[in-house]
Parts: sequence; C-alpha cells; structure tokens
Amino acid sequence: MAVVASLSNQTPSQPGIQSLVDLVSKGMEDVNQIILSKAGSNVELIPEIARHLISSGGKRLRPMLTLACANMFGYRGDGHVVLAASVEFMHTATLLHDDVVDESDMRRGKLAARKLWGNQASVLVGDYLLGQAFKMMVDVGSLEALRVLSEASAIIAEGEVLQLGAAKNIKTSEAEYLRVIEAKTAALFAAAAEVGPIIAGQDEAMRAAARTYGMELGLAFQLVDDALDYGGSSADLGKDIGDDFREGKITLPVVFSIQRGTDQEVAFWQRCLEGDDVTDADLQEAIALMKKYDAIADTVERAKSYGANAIKALDRLPAGSHRDALAEAVAFCIARVS
Amino acid sequence: MAVVASLSNQTPSQPGIQSLVDLVSKGMEDVNQIILSKAGSNVELIPEIARHLISSGGKRLRPMLTLACANMFGYRGDGHVVLAASVEFMHTATLLHDDVVDESDMRRGKLAARKLWGNQASVLVGDYLLGQAFKMMVDVGSLEALRVLSEASAIIAEGEVLQLGAAKNIKTSEAEYLRVIEAKTAALFAAAAEVGPIIAGQDEAMRAAARTYGMELGLAFQLVDDALDYGGSSADLGKDIGDDFREGKITLPVVFSIQRGTDQEVAFWQRCLEGDDVTDADLQEAIALMKKYDAIADTVERAKSYGANAIKALDRLPAGSHRDALAEAVAFCIARVS
Repeated sequence: MAVVASLSNQTPSQPGIQSLVDLVSKGMEDVNQIILSKAGSNVELIPEIARHLISSGGKRLRPMLTLACANMFGYRGDGHVVLAASVEFMHTATLLHDDVVDESDMRRGKLAARKLWGNQASVLVGDYLLGQAFKMMVDVGSLEALRVLSEASAIIAEGEVLQLGAAKNIKTSEAEYLRVIEAKTAALFAAAAEVGPIIAGQDEAMRAAARTYGMELGLAFQLVDDALDYGGSSADLGKDIGDDFREGKITLPVVFSIQRGTDQEVAFWQRCLEGDDVTDADLQEAIALMKKYDAIADTVERAKSYGANAIKALDRLPAGSHRDALAEAVAFCIARVS
Repeated sequence: MAVVASLSNQTPSQPGIQSLVDLVSKGMEDVNQIILSKAGSNVELIPEIARHLISSGGKRLRPMLTLACANMFGYRGDGHVVLAASVEFMHTATLLHDDVVDESDMRRGKLAARKLWGNQASVLVGDYLLGQAFKMMVDVGSLEALRVLSEASAIIAEGEVLQLGAAKNIKTSEAEYLRVIEAKTAALFAAAAEVGPIIAGQDEAMRAAARTYGMELGLAFQLVDDALDYGGSSADLGKDIGDDFREGKITLPVVFSIQRGTDQEVAFWQRCLEGDDVTDADLQEAIALMKKYDAIADTVERAKSYGANAIKALDRLPAGSHRDALAEAVAFCIARVS
C-alpha cells in the first residue's frame, strides 16, 4: 500500500524501519484489507470519514508491532492481523476524538476530519471505530488480548483527561507530563506489542518483555514528536512546527524551559500557553529559549534513554530477524529528530 | 439507592415497574456499587463527571433487564451484575457523547456535563467509561456476551451518525426514523436483555426471545419519549417539553405532521427545524399541528404496537414472577404517555 511504501524513502545511511516493513509486509496487506472492509457501514458518512483518515497515511507502526511480536514466536494463525487492525482502529478513534478535544485544524498534513465533517461526526465515527475494534477482538476470541486492549482503551482516555487538566498549566512537572504520555501514547504501543506473544500462546515473561519494549518505545516516540514540534535538533525549521505551542500544550521541552527560565521568561510562557493569540515571533522566541536552556536536546536525551530501555527489553525476546527489525525501529524513531 | 427508590412514587392504579424493581433489588445494589467503584480513577475529573451523571438518576431500566433476564433462568453467579453495570456504563458514555453532539444544555433536569466541564471532558470521560465497560465484560469472561455488547456499541454509534444525517431534514421518512431509533436506542435494550440468557447458559431460542423483547421494548420506550417531548397525549403541558423541537430533531410525531401537512405547514416545519431561532409560540403551533393530524396519538399507537410485540416475545420465555415483571415494565413504559 502507498502508506507503507512511502516509508522506504529513507537515505540508506539513516536507521530505517524498512526491515520491519519487509518482514510484516504480507500481514500488513491483510491488515489493510481488514481495515478497509471493517471501516465500511451502510451509513455513508462512516466509511467516508474513516477512509479519509486511513488513506491519509501515518506509519502504521502500532499494527506492525503486533505482527512482528507474534511472528517472532512463529505464530501461524491469522488472529494477529485482526488484532493489529483493531489496534489501528483504536488509534484512529483516538485521533478523531483528539482533534475534537484539541480543536485541531490539521491532521497528517490534511484538514482534520472535524473541519471537513464537523465535531459531531468525528465524535460518533470515533465511537463506531472503537465498537468495531472490540467486535474484531471478540472474533479473535482471546480473552487475554481483549483484557490488554480494553485496559489500554480506558488508560488512553484517562491520559487524555489528565492532559486536559495539565493543558495551559505552566506548573506541570516532568513527572506529571510523563504520566500523561505513558497513558495517552505509550499504553497503546505496549498493548500492541503484548498481544503478539499473547496470540502466539506465550507465557507472562515473554508478554512482559514485549509490553516493556512497546511502552519504552512509545515514550521515546512521543518525546521525539514533542521535540520535532519545535523543529527538533535541526536549525532548519520546517513549516510543520509549532502546533503544540499554538494549542497551549505543555510538552517536555516546555516543562524544561519553564523550570530553567527567569521570572520574565516564565511570564512569557504563561502568556503564550494560556492565551489564545500567539504570533510567529512568539514561536521564534520560544524556540530561542529552548535552545538557550538545551530543552530540546535534553528532551531528545530522554527519548534516547527510553529507546535504550526498549532495546534492553528485546534481549528477553527470541533472537532473530524480527528482534533485529524491532531494534532498528527504535533507532528509526530516535533518528527522526537527529 | 435513591435512584431506584424514587421509582416507587407511582399511584397504585398505574402500571408500575415496582415488581421488577423489587425482584432485582439485591442485584441492583451490587450493580450500583460496581458502578461507583469502576467510575473511580486517580484522574480527579473522571469520578466527578461520572458521579454527576450516575447520581442524577435515570431509571436504570437497562441493567434491570439484564438482571431479570438472567434471574428468570435461575442464574446464581455474579456475572449478570457486572454485565448490567457494563450496560449502564455504555449507556452513560452514549449520553455524554450525545449531549456534545446535540449541543444539549440539560440532562435529566440538571445542567449537562458538557455545560459544567466542557465538551472536551465529556468526550474523554465517555471514552473512559466505554473502556471500563469493556474491561468489566472481559472480567465476566463470556465471549458471547462480549460479542453482543460490542456489536451493540458499534450499532449505537451508527444510529447516531444516521440521526446526524437525518437531523433537520424534513424529508425523513417513518422507515428512516425507525432505523435510527432501532440503532441508537433499541439495540442496547436488546443487548441488555440478551446477555441475561447468555450468562445463564441458555440456547439461541431463549436468547432470541429476550433479544426481541428488549428490541421491541426499546422502540416503544423511544417513541413514548418522542411523544412526551411534545407533551404526550395530555393537554397539560409541563415545562420539560420541546427539547427535540428546539434541537431540530426529526422524531415520529414530526414525520407524521409533515407527511400530513399542507405546503404552508411544511414550510413552517422547515423554518423551525432548519433554523436556530424557534420561539415558544412556534412550539405551541407545532403542538397544535400535531393535534390536528393526530401525530402524537399515532406515535403512541405505534409505541403500543411495539409494546405488544415485546409482550408476545415474553411468551417464549419461562413463566414466573420475572416474566410477569417484564410484562409490567412494558405497560409502565407505555403508561408514561397516557
């Protein structure tokens, strides 16, 4: 699929996820087919919105984790592809609701669904995809996989509520922020990985290793995203930066900048994050402050340390091409910001 | 609990649901305890909002259906109370999202959660309750119950999307409207009833009878609600009427009035339902047109006929006090409008 193919545009020197993509390519074709068919409904608006989101890409990293973490145990059934599709539906439902909650205008470089069809449809189609996700999990028939994914579903929502409380609150601590991203992002990565060994009939030790890998990768992934939203380590600022800043989101680079800032700088952050009207000059000033205090570099350092934990968790999983590809995926996530 | 006790304020001559309430009172105490404990979270806003909704009452008809439809088969475990609590969580999540979608200001005579805490929190706490509902179902461990309830979850969302498309569309037909309420209301009644025989280990024949009972009762219930929103059959118009009208919702009394109206009257409906600014005089005019064309009376007739189907479905279920109480519950739902 185009979505997957677009990932191959890496320069050879960079760590890529091409080996992961190649290893699970057959399974991902099935996942994509299931996604398209299960996003269908006689109610026209539903497939229209679902396909808008699904075709707009994204890396599909979460379902690839599920496939790789099942295949690494030699799993031969087709439950993993259905679980992988469920994971992607849960993720898509979250994106739809997130955009409503964050009042976002754009998603993956396209107009957000809520701008095209309204908040109402975004809420309801998200609910529909979540219902479909659970139906698909039931079809697979593993109560343990259902337990892990339903638990993740509740935790993600908790994380989003937590973030809502933290939004625009300049007193948010690093620990509070980590709690938010562990819930809203890393929990689904962890569940996506853990259902691999579950469907492959593995014991708790293997499940725990996969879960830890997913959780740590998810944390690294989110922190890299946070750094990228302020241009990452690069001096070359693309045009897709500053969304978090404009939405008043407190992310780790901001937490660091506020902790290390003078009273006057804290007042600047307060005005920008609590107010509605921030300018491009404000964004430039924010990035300058981050550079002054190494806030982005330190965020990337944190991401690298979670990435290292993810790699360490892999030691407990079976050696082989899948494990190698999962290790490369960690490097890929980190390399996005270097 | 106060919620349940308030239902006993019936005059003795009216059909009541007191026998249903009495029969399942022990189980409903457990359901209420589960609801309060599972609506808890370390994230403060979640129990605050959940308890606001839960303590504001409602009849808890759906979980009572689950308990009665399990007890009538002599079920002795405690899976039915957990499933009943899941059903109520699904319902509560739907109410939270509905209020956002409908932009409602009031819910059960109190300010809607979205007016108190904002749309964002309502969306996310709804998601949390849905996640908790699925976790609880997994705890019960019946894949069949999970299948029925996850199916209902997707269907409810489909119904809401369908309603969104039909909203303010004066060409909505009776069949289209029935499709909406079958999905958005009756499907959960049907699932709530069906999981009773499922958890009690009954066969498909019993499941089908319970499902049909719930479905037909749900249709009757919704049509009575629709009629009550225009004051029902009574000449005495309370103050809690006209919400559907102000929100531009096309319900069956409106469908009938439009079908039977003159061009001028249809233009009136169009102005009121498609516009944002309707007056009390408009509402009085709408009610007058409904009386002119027996639109409310005919809606109540339809409700009675679905109620009769519900009673008929009970014939296939075991005779006894539970079946009698379920029959009375149908009469109670209809009697609300008489």
